[in-house]
Amino acid sequence: MLHGGAIADAMLGWKTHGTLSPARDNAVLYPTSYGARHPELEWLIGPDGVLDPTRWFVVQVDMFGNGISSSPSNTADYPPLVTAWDNVQAQRQLLRDVFGIDRLHAAYGWSMGAQQAYHWAACFPEAVERVVINCGSARTAAHNQVFLRGLMAVLEAAPEHRGEGRFAAEPALAKRAFGRIYAGWALSQDFYRAGLHLSPETPDLAAYLRGWETRYDAKPAADLLAQLRCWDAGDISDNPLHGGDLPRALAAIRARVLLMPGATDLYFRVADNEAELPHLRDAKLLPIPGIHGHRAGNPAGNAAGTAFLREAVRLWLD
Amino acid sequence: MLHGGAIADAMLGWKTHGTLSPARDNAVLYPTSYGARHPELEWLIGPDGVLDPTRWFVVQVDMFGNGISSSPSNTADYPPLVTAWDNVQAQRQLLRDVFGIDRLHAAYGWSMGAQQAYHWAACFPEAVERVVINCGSARTAAHNQVFLRGLMAVLEAAPEHRGEGRFAAEPALAKRAFGRIYAGWALSQDFYRAGLHLSPETPDLAAYLRGWETRYDAKPAADLLAQLRCWDAGDISDNPLHGGDLPRALAAIRARVLLMPGATDLYFRVADNEAELPHLRDAKLLPIPGIHGHRAGNPAGNAAGTAFLREAVRLWLD
Repeated sequence: MLHGGAIADAMLGWKTHGTLSPARDNAVLYPTSYGARHPELEWLIGPDGVLDPTRWFVVQVDMFGNGISSSPSNTADYPPLVTAWDNVQAQRQLLRDVFGIDRLHAAYGWSMGAQQAYHWAACFPEAVERVVINCGSARTAAHNQVFLRGLMAVLEAAPEHRGEGRFAAEPALAKRAFGRIYAGWALSQDFYRAGLHLSPETPDLAAYLRGWETRYDAKPAADLLAQLRCWDAGDISDNPLHGGDLPRALAAIRARVLLMPGATDLYFRVADNEAELPHLRDAKLLPIPGIHGHRAGNPAGNAAGTAFLREAVRLWLD
Repeated sequence: MLHGGAIADAMLGWKTHGTLSPARDNAVLYPTSYGARHPELEWLIGPDGVLDPTRWFVVQVDMFGNGISSSPSNTADYPPLVTAWDNVQAQRQLLRDVFGIDRLHAAYGWSMGAQQAYHWAACFPEAVERVVINCGSARTAAHNQVFLRGLMAVLEAAPEHRGEGRFAAEPALAKRAFGRIYAGWALSQDFYRAGLHLSPETPDLAAYLRGWETRYDAKPAADLLAQLRCWDAGDISDNPLHGGDLPRALAAIRARVLLMPGATDLYFRVADNEAELPHLRDAKLLPIPGIHGHRAGNPAGNAAGTAFLREAVRLWLD
């Protein structure tokens, strides 16, 4: 691993959609985001979806720490920090060894998935033609880190926490708090002001929050913590290639970069992508309009949001 | 109390600055904000300060639950919910019984203090000439409630929590998490992006967050929780006078209302005050510029922010 340790017999979960072309030039990599496993992010793949498997060979890859790929929950000596750099190295090996793919038509990702896509573009500049950075950033912003470190402290404060990111049992009450805190960040203030959290199933805020309180029940706390550390350390320049020089890492990217921050995202900010833009040689900034906050980038169940995403991504991939 | 229970032998902490005029017409009430005791908010009172005690008789009053006034930490049977309504009833009695004051020249408050000032204007329309609502709202917004309920859940998840908002011992690790979470909300994303959290004393984010991690060490968790509940329930219309009808409560206000949200405040939003404005008969919206988030309204140590606040408040009070 970039920051020490190793995963013995590392595993990567993955699922493909569509057919790899004989020239092996239609692969679109789609890594997972925080807390998610690939089935949860599959909804936008389809002939009429955002990623069209009749044209592209879409490869979903589970991030280390997500409970399917090597994670604290399935690996005794999981290293203290597994980074996006480590993830993309393993993804590159997977694509080469299993599919013989050396070059991606595109890397597409949302949130931590976007950070992995960004790492692909910066770490393997010759291997990526296009990237779609959907609610992600090249380096995790300080404010985003404050959010993450609050969540870390909630899990670490649990009586079930044994230390070193390991737990004697699942910390049910800490995960309840974790979910509520997440609910404050994942959607925008305007989303709540407009009452979009209300529905026949969730007639008031308490009912809506109950969904968040139980959201992480099935996710091992040790995995949640490992992924938080990965996110907190996200930085395309923190590696031997770029030596911590973010402008240099951005300038090394040869892919065409579509930056799609959510207009009202509270932790991956439009301003963060705006600051990256001058350093990118071929990039476009296209904020996703609306009041869905960070969720604007993964608009399951939101028809208008999905239509916007589909049109923008399809144009970029053409 | 509005929602049941009573505080036997209720106590209010207070401190006055300046001299009450013979006509008793120069009183400016200045209630405390979340987690604060009056000395922490005293810095802006001075002949050249925001509140000038050579002109006004400034009465700082400690909110119930802040550890000086009646609070869980000093009152065995403290009620489950003590509201801003309850606070302003007690404040009115204090002003009448101790000083013979029936009418305020102004009520000035920041954050939860602003919510109390708003309650004064709505609950005693004839008793308040001016109010300054500095980073506050007439009703706590849903998004703000999500923030607060996350904090509640952090304290409730502590192994020291006995239930019912009482603690067997101070929950040190939970308060560490509490402080970190607060740090993400109290300042804006832009504040952190600009590196304003960095100084010779706090050369990196971890060092800056250590200040927040220990910020609540001296504040009893039961008091922190009681004040969160009060904030969560903040609503100038939730009382027998206004029956839950917020537009009616806003329309009942006779005071001249200066709404000063922080332009980049993450929980008391400019949009929340904008929504109140059409219902107020005599009000002005004056967002506080800058990137200090919620702290823009209590700009201790920030000369530009203090100058802006001083000028606006002095004009309003004249």
